[in-house]
Amino acid sequence: MYQPFTPPPRRLMGPGPTMVHPRVLAASARPTIGHLDPAFAGLMDETKALLQHAFRTGNALTMPVSAPGSAGMEMCFVNLVEPGDKVIVCVNGVFGGRMKENVERSGGVAVVVEDPWGAPVDPAKVAEALDRHPDTKVVAFVHAETSTGALSDARAITDLAHRQGALVIVDAVTSLAGVPLLVDEWQLDAVYSGSQKCLSCMPGLSPVTFGAAALEKIRSRGSRVQSWFLDLSLVMGYWDSAGGRSYHHTAPVNAIYALHEALVMLHEEGLENAWQRHRDCHERLVKGLQDLGLEMLVEESARLPQLNAVRIPEGVDDAGLRRELLAKHDLEIGAGLGELSGKIWRIGLMGEAARPENVDYCLAALKSVLGNQLTAAA
Amino acid sequence: MYQPFTPPPRRLMGPGPTMVHPRVLAASARPTIGHLDPAFAGLMDETKALLQHAFRTGNALTMPVSAPGSAGMEMCFVNLVEPGDKVIVCVNGVFGGRMKENVERSGGVAVVVEDPWGAPVDPAKVAEALDRHPDTKVVAFVHAETSTGALSDARAITDLAHRQGALVIVDAVTSLAGVPLLVDEWQLDAVYSGSQKCLSCMPGLSPVTFGAAALEKIRSRGSRVQSWFLDLSLVMGYWDSAGGRSYHHTAPVNAIYALHEALVMLHEEGLENAWQRHRDCHERLVKGLQDLGLEMLVEESARLPQLNAVRIPEGVDDAGLRRELLAKHDLEIGAGLGELSGKIWRIGLMGEAARPENVDYCLAALKSVLGNQLTAAA
Repeated sequence: MYQPFTPPPRRLMGPGPTMVHPRVLAASARPTIGHLDPAFAGLMDETKALLQHAFRTGNALTMPVSAPGSAGMEMCFVNLVEPGDKVIVCVNGVFGGRMKENVERSGGVAVVVEDPWGAPVDPAKVAEALDRHPDTKVVAFVHAETSTGALSDARAITDLAHRQGALVIVDAVTSLAGVPLLVDEWQLDAVYSGSQKCLSCMPGLSPVTFGAAALEKIRSRGSRVQSWFLDLSLVMGYWDSAGGRSYHHTAPVNAIYALHEALVMLHEEGLENAWQRHRDCHERLVKGLQDLGLEMLVEESARLPQLNAVRIPEGVDDAGLRRELLAKHDLEIGAGLGELSGKIWRIGLMGEAARPENVDYCLAALKSVLGNQLTAAA
Repeated sequence: MYQPFTPPPRRLMGPGPTMVHPRVLAASARPTIGHLDPAFAGLMDETKALLQHAFRTGNALTMPVSAPGSAGMEMCFVNLVEPGDKVIVCVNGVFGGRMKENVERSGGVAVVVEDPWGAPVDPAKVAEALDRHPDTKVVAFVHAETSTGALSDARAITDLAHRQGALVIVDAVTSLAGVPLLVDEWQLDAVYSGSQKCLSCMPGLSPVTFGAAALEKIRSRGSRVQSWFLDLSLVMGYWDSAGGRSYHHTAPVNAIYALHEALVMLHEEGLENAWQRHRDCHERLVKGLQDLGLEMLVEESARLPQLNAVRIPEGVDDAGLRRELLAKHDLEIGAGLGELSGKIWRIGLMGEAARPENVDYCLAALKSVLGNQLTAAA
């Protein structure tokens, strides 16, 4: 009655998960070993080193959380925010809103700085909020808003926060490996990402990195971290091979195999080359979209190469078009979220999706399906 | 400089992760599709149905949490315990202790009922604690203590709790699919498990199930759930295909492929047959251990077939023996945890490990290595 599942062939060009290279799929299927096996400890160390490389950081506290990006986000907030702490949260899309939820559930007081969906965070507004709230402990923002395709100036916002003694929590779920993300040079304090975006691994893990100031804040907490699973002092003991690895949870062994392989591939390509590849594919896509008469949501200066928000033309059936792309072309693109639902499509060029042949395939499929829709409407 | 990782061949006979069948490994490596793909929604529905079968429940709210068992545990506590709630926690090993941590971090008041490590929870002590604390909201206990190998009487403890209007939270991480676990017949309210034990899948997911009374308690909460990632009202919206699936996080797509395949295999075998296979292998192992002059920690009546705690004989070097088993025989068995560290080994017969050939291999390896140790000591 129940059969093994065979997924349909798909070209994934939405907001993630993105396509996974056969090398990474194969790595994930190698036989499981124990999470306390010395061979696995070696793999954990190498995965940490490769993540440091991808994050451009020397932070010792760099590792994948054993759960999706939302858990990486929550780890940052529950460890760095204590009850009563004031946190400036920059909201210019869905994920800024989720950060606000996390602040409040951690007992913090959220001060929201809003920007229009599709625009980057305005540093001048952050400066103003810091002036009004000199007791701010943390400034939280999304580097690359997956819901809108806008890239914000992480360095400028961080400089403002640091000038006033506040830490930053940075959502780099979509930015890691797709655009420059220089954790040490920009002095980012706490950063979380996801495995299924520009790292081109399967979903399920959340790489995070924490700098010295974040660690100091955690060490000096007066209250216990409300989450046991995400308590950084426990998780870091588990990932600390030099310190003898104290048992916390059971790491998702095969998922780490896969992440390691994706990171080895990124290292082989070179991080700058990966950034350039995303940029090149983005330019190819934007040119093709313009040729189809389609408009981008985000101003050119703030566009994310890896997440392209395209305005849905008047009279086109959003869901119908996406259904047709999937059914006839095995192509997945993303819908708009929240207030952009029905107004944009999100075309992802993340990791393995960022190849010229995928861009061309996507453009051809869009052209065909848009043509069908306009014919049907006429 | 960095190379793909090739895990050493291992026979996993510790406390988990256990060995994963090639069919399950292969399923996990199928191409990733989108988590909002209609084909994936179908897979989610089938995975829920197969989990209901494994849990022996009709609970609609049955699904895998996108994170390890520790997160499944935390999901139960943060949703069912409100600040100030009194919770009786039965502690007879490491995982009962972890439950107490979870109660406290959720703002609850823990009343601990202790039993010796290696013994089951004594229902008489639970009854006594309920008498002393008539305002108890929840009774939490571990069905199968992975740290000691003791099986407790879930039905008896649940009946006591219900008689007084309290809910139960049950740790079934090691019991699911290894011994009878009858969620509906025993009326268990909230149960969490893990993918990497008797389901014989890779680690990383935590199947959970919640009954009507648990749901009612969640619906009538006066306070918000402190975790966003584990907020059941959000997670269940994501898993509810009839209700239209509202976006929460990105499911670990390939991990769900694997869990689905493991559950299909369990369904093919039949749940009762799986229980019997664990029982048969356990008896074969215990007989062999006795022939080697080794003693079990747990009384026969409370022994878990899938987790066998063996007393380390006087004069034997615990870590040295386990190292030798791994190096010379590629065999992993588990160490003791906490107060049993250095006193027991834990031999797992979980899922694929529960095969007569593995039992015989383990006994032969143990005999050889013990012989070497005794020769070296002489």
